[in-house]
Amino acid sequence: MYQNDAFRALDRQESLRLLAKVPVGRVVYTRQALPAVLPVNFSLDTDSSVLLCTSPDSDLVGAIDGVVVAFEADEFDAATRSGWSVVVTGRATVVTDPAEHERLSRDGPASWMPLAGAAFVRIESQMVTGRELRPPGL
Amino acid sequence: MYQNDAFRALDRQESLRLLAKVPVGRVVYTRQALPAVLPVNFSLDTDSSVLLCTSPDSDLVGAIDGVVVAFEADEFDAATRSGWSVVVTGRATVVTDPAEHERLSRDGPASWMPLAGAAFVRIESQMVTGRELRPPGL
Repeated sequence: MYQNDAFRALDRQESLRLLAKVPVGRVVYTRQALPAVLPVNFSLDTDSSVLLCTSPDSDLVGAIDGVVVAFEADEFDAATRSGWSVVVTGRATVVTDPAEHERLSRDGPASWMPLAGAAFVRIESQMVTGRELRPPGL
Repeated sequence: MYQNDAFRALDRQESLRLLAKVPVGRVVYTRQALPAVLPVNFSLDTDSSVLLCTSPDSDLVGAIDGVVVAFEADEFDAATRSGWSVVVTGRATVVTDPAEHERLSRDGPASWMPLAGAAFVRIESQMVTGRELRPPGL
């Protein structure tokens, strides 16, 4: 739906403000040379990086630690054919610093699934792009 | 949220049935060696391939024609921490056959944006995976 000029580009601040409104986004990465995508709940850290909480031995952690990934969130309304999407592109790293891990255990995202142990993944918000699609005629 | 056994794998038929319920999904591909993702409205063809309608000269068409991409859709409810996601992985191709183009102009997806001309992209449902996350305790 974003292939011509009927959308409005959002700046970094607008994009991050919208991103903070939704609980779930999608990690986009490469797995065995194929495009892969996984929905996850998340939160934004004080430096606007995206924080995920997952199992330390998950396939996701193995696939994205140290790698540039995209993280996407959106909201669309089919009735009005309008909405927005935001993509954060940046390096994903597993949090290894003990003090940082402790801070995120208190203030970071909680997994929606019961986990034996928590691994936090940070996606740096090196590039943030957003687009808004308005209802036709507005 | 999908990193352990608290989700249920969905079979191909369940996955396609859920996919047919939602108007918008996300094309996942590679652009300039980086992971890329673009939300688009779509429909399912009679052979369960995913159909998109976009501008013939869009960046998306140039990036994915002839390439294996992933297409993802999901629905989650933060209140109950439950939902589902489906990923179709397969080759994307621009529809070039005139009769097929005419059929899709009648019965295929309509772009949410005004287009000067319509290009239809078909993503073959070579691999269809789905996962369901149930509310805790169910």
